[in-house]
Amino acid sequence: MGSLLIKNATAILPMTGPDQILYNADLAIEGKEIKYVGNVPAEFQPDTVIDARGKVVMPGLVNCHNHAAMTLLRSYADDLPLMEWLQKKIWPIEAHLNSEDVYWGSLLACAEMVKSGTTLFADMYFEMGRVAEAAQVVGIRANLARGMIGFGPNAERAINESVELVECWHCKADGMVKVMLGPHAPYTCPPEYLERVMKLADDLKVGIHIHLAETKAEVEEIKEKYGTTPVKLMDQIGLFKGRQVLAAHCVHLTDEEMEILANHKVGIAHNPESNMKLASGVAPVPRLLELGAVVGLGTDGPSSNNNLDLMQEMRSAALLHKVFTMNPTVLPAYTALEMATVKGAQALGYDNLGQLQPGYLADIILIDLEKPHLYPRHDLIANLVYSATAADVDTVIVNGRVIMTERKLLFVDEKEVIERAEARTKELLARAASEK
Amino acid sequence: MGSLLIKNATAILPMTGPDQILYNADLAIEGKEIKYVGNVPAEFQPDTVIDARGKVVMPGLVNCHNHAAMTLLRSYADDLPLMEWLQKKIWPIEAHLNSEDVYWGSLLACAEMVKSGTTLFADMYFEMGRVAEAAQVVGIRANLARGMIGFGPNAERAINESVELVECWHCKADGMVKVMLGPHAPYTCPPEYLERVMKLADDLKVGIHIHLAETKAEVEEIKEKYGTTPVKLMDQIGLFKGRQVLAAHCVHLTDEEMEILANHKVGIAHNPESNMKLASGVAPVPRLLELGAVVGLGTDGPSSNNNLDLMQEMRSAALLHKVFTMNPTVLPAYTALEMATVKGAQALGYDNLGQLQPGYLADIILIDLEKPHLYPRHDLIANLVYSATAADVDTVIVNGRVIMTERKLLFVDEKEVIERAEARTKELLARAASEK
Repeated sequence: MGSLLIKNATAILPMTGPDQILYNADLAIEGKEIKYVGNVPAEFQPDTVIDARGKVVMPGLVNCHNHAAMTLLRSYADDLPLMEWLQKKIWPIEAHLNSEDVYWGSLLACAEMVKSGTTLFADMYFEMGRVAEAAQVVGIRANLARGMIGFGPNAERAINESVELVECWHCKADGMVKVMLGPHAPYTCPPEYLERVMKLADDLKVGIHIHLAETKAEVEEIKEKYGTTPVKLMDQIGLFKGRQVLAAHCVHLTDEEMEILANHKVGIAHNPESNMKLASGVAPVPRLLELGAVVGLGTDGPSSNNNLDLMQEMRSAALLHKVFTMNPTVLPAYTALEMATVKGAQALGYDNLGQLQPGYLADIILIDLEKPHLYPRHDLIANLVYSATAADVDTVIVNGRVIMTERKLLFVDEKEVIERAEARTKELLARAASEK
Repeated sequence: MGSLLIKNATAILPMTGPDQILYNADLAIEGKEIKYVGNVPAEFQPDTVIDARGKVVMPGLVNCHNHAAMTLLRSYADDLPLMEWLQKKIWPIEAHLNSEDVYWGSLLACAEMVKSGTTLFADMYFEMGRVAEAAQVVGIRANLARGMIGFGPNAERAINESVELVECWHCKADGMVKVMLGPHAPYTCPPEYLERVMKLADDLKVGIHIHLAETKAEVEEIKEKYGTTPVKLMDQIGLFKGRQVLAAHCVHLTDEEMEILANHKVGIAHNPESNMKLASGVAPVPRLLELGAVVGLGTDGPSSNNNLDLMQEMRSAALLHKVFTMNPTVLPAYTALEMATVKGAQALGYDNLGQLQPGYLADIILIDLEKPHLYPRHDLIANLVYSATAADVDTVIVNGRVIMTERKLLFVDEKEVIERAEARTKELLARAASEK
């Protein structure tokens, strides 16, 4: 693999502390890892040089919770009550999605994610091998889980497909794909099923990605069935013990549950915009952060957001928690940026990602600062969180490889992806109509 | 003045109703007005033709509340308690802003606004003649008010400067500048001062732009001083009677006050992101809309937002009110779009703006739909509100004149504006430091 020098960066933001900004600095990549940050010795001989004048160099963004292929259902159903949205619109059309749909929908999602600065995403859906293929084509890092419902005919199938996914893809594609098991949620996976999943995860040495405490209705249902709340139930069956767990949403939590999540270093995927749009509620993120919980950011699927734009998600997180706690000092800009980078990487179980440090994986984005809305720059971090947008992302590097320059994706034909995704969508709608 | 044909638009969104979308349609402009929408007769001979294939044509966005020149203070102070932010950071540095600062800061703001689809903004600040100049240079429509504090040495000065502003600029610049009087707020303008301002507004035949019920602290202060709440106090002195009033914020309202605002057709500038970031609270917008109130959207100044991006503001409004009311059907996409266009224009007192109709002023934007995040398009309106971003705005037309094409501003050198604004900021900081 080659070597790469990023020189003359207006600023490098290593995400190792709020005051640690390097101005007019260089960064060197050797193979898939970062080699030097700040000063690069003159003897370093790069294969490629990127001039980062007018740009900030920072870790790529980490999307901790997605259902990527649902791009095909973007704007298919909005502004509806949650259960009507799910039962009358999303689930019936989803039943018609096939392997090719998932592939092209995921490619569209990967294109959108890279163009908004995401370099790693966690996904839970089905036909996950096709999602892995799409990620590999675009060049983005992926953390994939086959969603599992613990009853009905698909319960066994989901287990078999998960095992197959691990065998085919875990730590494959130059280490850029990792697999987790994806039991959907406590209300769709009974404890005995979850215990099988836990045992399987340990045997396969992979983590677990689960939806947890997303809505009030879920909490009520679990209480009624099991006499306790979702996170406590998961704690009781030992879900969090001795394994990597990624829990999406965590909106409705008791104080005790927050402590459980923090103490077990459970990765929490906070999805502020999905929770707002579906009116699920506001996760107690400021309190979770105080307790030392590992909280990253996610977009959730594009039919409940309706984009995969982490720049927006950062900003929404920072704004939402201020007004919800009536405290403007809550979730300051740097904290939002940490959640979108290093904390997100930790939530997904990476200890060598999300910061710019020698030896870390080279997942890096360059943001173009030469825009009216990014001037002046009294505070670079505030500008990135409160003023920057997805379209300011200029260059994206994943695993030491440049996959976007000047907003052009290098390994995929963006126009073709759009056209194919659009065609798949039309076929999907026709199929759904004819099979009614 | 010339004539302009916009042809082959993928869609035209006249904002005359949620289902009134015209596909593969044309629009014609003659002078400063819209002449035909949908079908343009073959005999129409345009001077200029714009091909709008792959684009949606819709009314320009209306920013109902801004302090444009505060771009120079973007990211100067964030994540602080409100009074500390104002008293220790914003007011001291603002005291050093001079006429040139206001000019270049406003130019930077106008550049940013046009690049995010805004064609009309309401501004309250000082040195407002310079703001008018900046707007005229860029080609954006403006509604300007000199902020007035009703005590101290500036009380008289603000009145004199307001009169001067009306004389110099009201209905000038080809009708693109309108002036209002800008009494700052009930807590900074005693009733006797407001009564003078009301009389002056009537004499000059202009409207009034005021901050109203922004924070809980304001409500408490007014209650203590006057034994009633801010909107009721304003109603008692007759502020809303028989004149155009634009009230910014309106966060903390009683039921009675909501009815007063709705009944008097007071223009309400809702600034969701500023209210979130400063933790001022959540304005009761869904209830105000139910009552028939005229609610538009604003960004507030760029030091409390920190951008002037109405595409984001629309989305934030739609998301915030869903989660705050725990009802995902509240403030649907079309309503958010109305607030950003036709309702905003009404809030500023225009009855021939904010919709695409023959005879209406030709303030129009073209949004490029050929982006991964804008596919597929099950619902164009949902895509515009929930998925589109500022950078998708491709072309901007104000008063029949194209002022941006392919994201390039036509009447101002964007690079020079950035550089001059940056230089002014450095000088401002140096001046503030030396005069300490």
